[in-house]
Amino acid sequence: MPASLARLRRAQEVMRERGVDALFVGPSADLRYLLGYHALPLERLTLLVVPAEGDPALVVPELEAPRAVASGAADLIDVRTWTETEDPFRHVADVVRAAGVSNGAILAVQDRLWSAFTLQLQESIPAEGWVAGTTVMRELRIVKTADEIAALRRVGAAIDEVHRQVPGLLRPGRPESEVGRDIAELILREHDEVNFVIVASGPNGASPHHETGDRRLEEGDAVVVDIGGTGDGYCSDNTRNYVIGRAPEGYAELHEVLLTAQRAAVAAVRPGVAAEDVDRAARGIIEDAGYGAAFVHRTGHGIGVEEHEDPYIVAGNDEPLVEGMTFSVEPGIYLDGRYGARIEDIVAVTASGAERLNTVDRELTEVPVA
Amino acid sequence: MPASLARLRRAQEVMRERGVDALFVGPSADLRYLLGYHALPLERLTLLVVPAEGDPALVVPELEAPRAVASGAADLIDVRTWTETEDPFRHVADVVRAAGVSNGAILAVQDRLWSAFTLQLQESIPAEGWVAGTTVMRELRIVKTADEIAALRRVGAAIDEVHRQVPGLLRPGRPESEVGRDIAELILREHDEVNFVIVASGPNGASPHHETGDRRLEEGDAVVVDIGGTGDGYCSDNTRNYVIGRAPEGYAELHEVLLTAQRAAVAAVRPGVAAEDVDRAARGIIEDAGYGAAFVHRTGHGIGVEEHEDPYIVAGNDEPLVEGMTFSVEPGIYLDGRYGARIEDIVAVTASGAERLNTVDRELTEVPVA
Repeated sequence: MPASLARLRRAQEVMRERGVDALFVGPSADLRYLLGYHALPLERLTLLVVPAEGDPALVVPELEAPRAVASGAADLIDVRTWTETEDPFRHVADVVRAAGVSNGAILAVQDRLWSAFTLQLQESIPAEGWVAGTTVMRELRIVKTADEIAALRRVGAAIDEVHRQVPGLLRPGRPESEVGRDIAELILREHDEVNFVIVASGPNGASPHHETGDRRLEEGDAVVVDIGGTGDGYCSDNTRNYVIGRAPEGYAELHEVLLTAQRAAVAAVRPGVAAEDVDRAARGIIEDAGYGAAFVHRTGHGIGVEEHEDPYIVAGNDEPLVEGMTFSVEPGIYLDGRYGARIEDIVAVTASGAERLNTVDRELTEVPVA
Repeated sequence: MPASLARLRRAQEVMRERGVDALFVGPSADLRYLLGYHALPLERLTLLVVPAEGDPALVVPELEAPRAVASGAADLIDVRTWTETEDPFRHVADVVRAAGVSNGAILAVQDRLWSAFTLQLQESIPAEGWVAGTTVMRELRIVKTADEIAALRRVGAAIDEVHRQVPGLLRPGRPESEVGRDIAELILREHDEVNFVIVASGPNGASPHHETGDRRLEEGDAVVVDIGGTGDGYCSDNTRNYVIGRAPEGYAELHEVLLTAQRAAVAAVRPGVAAEDVDRAARGIIEDAGYGAAFVHRTGHGIGVEEHEDPYIVAGNDEPLVEGMTFSVEPGIYLDGRYGARIEDIVAVTASGAERLNTVDRELTEVPVA
């Protein structure tokens, strides 16, 4: 991702609109988004300090300075290094003071900053109130630019390509973990990083967040494969369902219900529709088919520089969709002790509807047994 | 790691000694340590609530419940699930109230809990003060039991085994990233997880936290290889230095200085010695050799269920070492634009000195060029 002073300036604009006087950002997707610096989350403090007015600065441990400079951060803003025996929060306080932030300030902390740092900030910097960093960052990140959507389209095509190769890996007798490693390697060929690999076979498919385990694939298994990576700073995420040999009883019918539900949800997407109405579109069909209690999660999550971000496609979220939002549409049905299924595509909200950023065949794939 | 009510009870004892009324623990090494539950860090709240008196409870999102139950957590303590449309902090407040925690309480938050959750806890739970979770957890984790040291010994032997295979991977023309992938695969054969892989060749070796890059290995390169994984819940971490063909000018001498410094630091380890004196032992030798300014980091970090934890072997830390502490001893010398070197072993403090948990040859390894 290119470093960009424009994004920092836009963050400062939003801060002024919202009455936030300074924003503190540790190693996170927000730091990559604002500064193009992919920092390691370490016990040594790295913190971007963005005052609403004036110049942002990056406080980094001395031994991370070469990486920070290599990222281009030092070309954009002041980089202040602290040594092993210094208190980094004194540097942070200096930057805040130099920007003229008053004691009555409202300060925002990036959502994933570790609590140890949050508590130390609260001790070191006088403030009237502390608010979540999303107060500022949500508005910047929730609607994607054309360039960002193009990046998500590319990474979507990359994960589709991995799914096309999955059937060749699903052979009876192979442990899920072994299949998972092969998939991770395929993801790396098409991405810069593997974010996660779920290979949930047979009854494991009934646990939506099962990763991989020791269970060996068997003929007649349904297998949920949900995978994602990062390419050029943007994330992919795509779920398809496979059966080894013939589908177990009832599975093909369940999958049809899910396909219909997923189509209905995607068809419901357009600017102005509430996020929860997309959830409702999928859920209604699943409920009508008698599987309502088995659809235990929301229909989707936003995606961009992070796998899971705003907007969440969930009951209770009445936020209207806006052209340029990108999120997953992934209804699922989970039958304890038997099997599960989930169909997931990333979509981008267009002027008149939705563009699917995943196009690999979403029908149930039967893998022939040799 | 086995789930263990004993560790939770011990945490409650420490809380009562320190005047902490409740401890909140999200997905983290502490959660694995206390409960044996390896939870994913997600935007949906998973939180272990430990009151100083009474029964702890685990608050989990409904769709993580199967994983929480599979971990054995539900056999130990109450598991409370929340659904997609509920406020999880109401569950947390219920547990706190049920345990009789008063409004004047001192509450501790696990060090790596995301700030978004920390701020929501501060809003939802009345308290007199908030303190870092390490107030409680440090004392539990800093001194290892014999079983824990045995686990670290096993994982130390595992990473040594990987290092023995590294010379076979270092061929001129191969990009660092490709070598890194091969190493990651070797780590996985000997561990459950890869934690990090640093392959820093030529001038990249001068950046202590360089991971891997596109640079291709060349004849005459010095290569710093610093790698670690997790096996049975405990972490390995070991650094060795290689040269491809003949060492570049001055490198063998620099490496000798480092070897002497590392030996001196390990020799300084015994109960009662201050952590900073171990740092001093290494630093003194490096300074005397004229490389003082090139040793830009502390000498070591504790290791256990986390790669980096207390105690830190750094100037300013006058904490006396105690039998059973485990940490890295890893002096390094970094010459900008040329090369770097670091020698790292994990040691355990014994009754009379130190046991090295890494024993693979720490001399400079020359890899012959075919």
